[in-house]
Amino acid sequence: MSSAPKQRKFEGWAAMDSNAIKGEMKWTEYRPKEFFDDDVELEIQYCGICGSDLHTMSDGWGSTKGMYPQVVGHEIVGKVVRVGKDVKHLKEGDIAGVGAQCDSCMECVNCKNGEENYCSKGQTGTYCGKFRRTAKGSKSYGGYANYWRGPAHFTIPIPDNLDPAEAAPMMCGGVTVYTPLKQYGAGTTAKSVGVVGLGGLGHFAVLFATAMGADVTAITHSHKKTEDAKKLGAKQVIVTGDDIKAAFKGYRRSLDLIIVSSNAPNMPFNAYLSLLRPHGHLVIVGAPEEGTIPNVSPFNLIGSNVHISGSAIGSVKGIAECLKFAGDHNIKAWVKRYTMKDANEAVEAA
Amino acid sequence: MSSAPKQRKFEGWAAMDSNAIKGEMKWTEYRPKEFFDDDVELEIQYCGICGSDLHTMSDGWGSTKGMYPQVVGHEIVGKVVRVGKDVKHLKEGDIAGVGAQCDSCMECVNCKNGEENYCSKGQTGTYCGKFRRTAKGSKSYGGYANYWRGPAHFTIPIPDNLDPAEAAPMMCGGVTVYTPLKQYGAGTTAKSVGVVGLGGLGHFAVLFATAMGADVTAITHSHKKTEDAKKLGAKQVIVTGDDIKAAFKGYRRSLDLIIVSSNAPNMPFNAYLSLLRPHGHLVIVGAPEEGTIPNVSPFNLIGSNVHISGSAIGSVKGIAECLKFAGDHNIKAWVKRYTMKDANEAVEAA
Repeated sequence: MSSAPKQRKFEGWAAMDSNAIKGEMKWTEYRPKEFFDDDVELEIQYCGICGSDLHTMSDGWGSTKGMYPQVVGHEIVGKVVRVGKDVKHLKEGDIAGVGAQCDSCMECVNCKNGEENYCSKGQTGTYCGKFRRTAKGSKSYGGYANYWRGPAHFTIPIPDNLDPAEAAPMMCGGVTVYTPLKQYGAGTTAKSVGVVGLGGLGHFAVLFATAMGADVTAITHSHKKTEDAKKLGAKQVIVTGDDIKAAFKGYRRSLDLIIVSSNAPNMPFNAYLSLLRPHGHLVIVGAPEEGTIPNVSPFNLIGSNVHISGSAIGSVKGIAECLKFAGDHNIKAWVKRYTMKDANEAVEAA
Repeated sequence: MSSAPKQRKFEGWAAMDSNAIKGEMKWTEYRPKEFFDDDVELEIQYCGICGSDLHTMSDGWGSTKGMYPQVVGHEIVGKVVRVGKDVKHLKEGDIAGVGAQCDSCMECVNCKNGEENYCSKGQTGTYCGKFRRTAKGSKSYGGYANYWRGPAHFTIPIPDNLDPAEAAPMMCGGVTVYTPLKQYGAGTTAKSVGVVGLGGLGHFAVLFATAMGADVTAITHSHKKTEDAKKLGAKQVIVTGDDIKAAFKGYRRSLDLIIVSSNAPNMPFNAYLSLLRPHGHLVIVGAPEEGTIPNVSPFNLIGSNVHISGSAIGSVKGIAECLKFAGDHNIKAWVKRYTMKDANEAVEAA
């Protein structure tokens, strides 16, 4: 495999401070990690805008501790333009993608079990992360950029039957809901699935759960998204409005699984739990910027043996499975396309 | 089957108000539910003192709304002295027990699945409950008494290889921890089990989990219970003391399952969750008198795909299985025996 020129100029839309989310990212050159034999480079074609990008640029989660400048974006799809000599599963010209995680220790029990997303030493995020395995200490840069460089293990081929533009948001948003839907048996042991929130994550949850054969109940705060929910495949829509007790009347113990994709603070978890059948699961995939899980009464958990959990993105295998499922089931993400030069406009609109 | 005299005099230690827990129960005659063809009567030999008895007498859970007079006790074992004509599985002279639940609708999907403890219409508690299936509206009276009368379906034979006195506290306390230990795979998929709190529930959790083949880590607030935990079978004991962070150092992601048997308010759930391996379960079986689950960060759930749930007592089948397991594994509950006439003294000491 011949190598492309070693010294590509890496440029991307950099957030210099928290004002970036107001559309003030700057096109900037930056230095990627050193290229190792198990790395690849992508010429970026598409990059989704994930909620995490905004939480990170605004430092809302506090997780990056103001690590600026930053180039966010972790729903990356592009053409493979350089391949390290130890890489077996990709070649130049392939279309491949990277999700929210671009490295892990590859040694712990979780990595060895194919669950890199739960690596004991923690993930290296695709942006604002630090590489620890190779190029130790180098900062990671995401996909609002011309090129991406990083470990091939986390770079996953896009199936031929999937539009690369639609695959992009599945690299993080899609797999984040696909993973718990599969884990908790959507369409099989969990026939009735609720989805709270209908943003990027929620819309994927309705699409995937429906394709898995579940009856989906969309739960949304206002009437505005009712039609969208139905178009996405929801069998029924509960609009919670201002009186959740009234809204949930008749729905007690009617769901097996609830995916909470909203990250609003102070969500009515006790009310959501009342919708679950015994042994049911409520899975949080959207993390709020502030606070803790509000006011859950232990009696609500005990009384029905229901579970609250959370789920973090997906493993490398999980992403590949999610992409295959989406291609095979002709799942169409609802995407609005912007050219890369209009990234500031896209971020403002997100 | 000949019937015993129809009009036994039912008498028990009645709480007349919340002072009862100070040792002020009064020996009182009361009227049990009407006897139906699917009922039995027990001559009570043993009755455990469950934490619920105290929460109920003090009205701490608010669940009985001050329903006095009340005769508590729902870890009942006695001799069958009267058998309704529709009862097949018991005969006069058998030794049998009743747990915390003595009736349910018997019609809903959960009852039909053998999960009466999650009956869609709710349980009839063995005391301070209202019968709804037969003798509608009658109040239920528990086991601090001479006799018990109620549905045979919830009256379970005590295996020959189990001491009836030790079986009594298993009817509620034992099965309450046995059920989630089995459900979440203690000793099989969950090799490492943590037990928070070493009271009635916690001591059973250590005994059962150890007998199931799990490595048990007892987690206790003070050194006082370290020796007991080891005698019960715990492989290691973590004393949390005043610096839980220091106490948990080195134990991150070391457990598959945690049974929280303590019902102290403001327990450090985030710290407990940090002890769980990915996909692990924390199960609450002790409900505090006040408040909600404190301060759980969604990031802690998401970051390891760990679960918080609760579990309510056990099904009829579950109790029978628990008693058989205890008999077969020679599990000895740590009981202190009082005669029934010293019930006030026993309650004060509990």
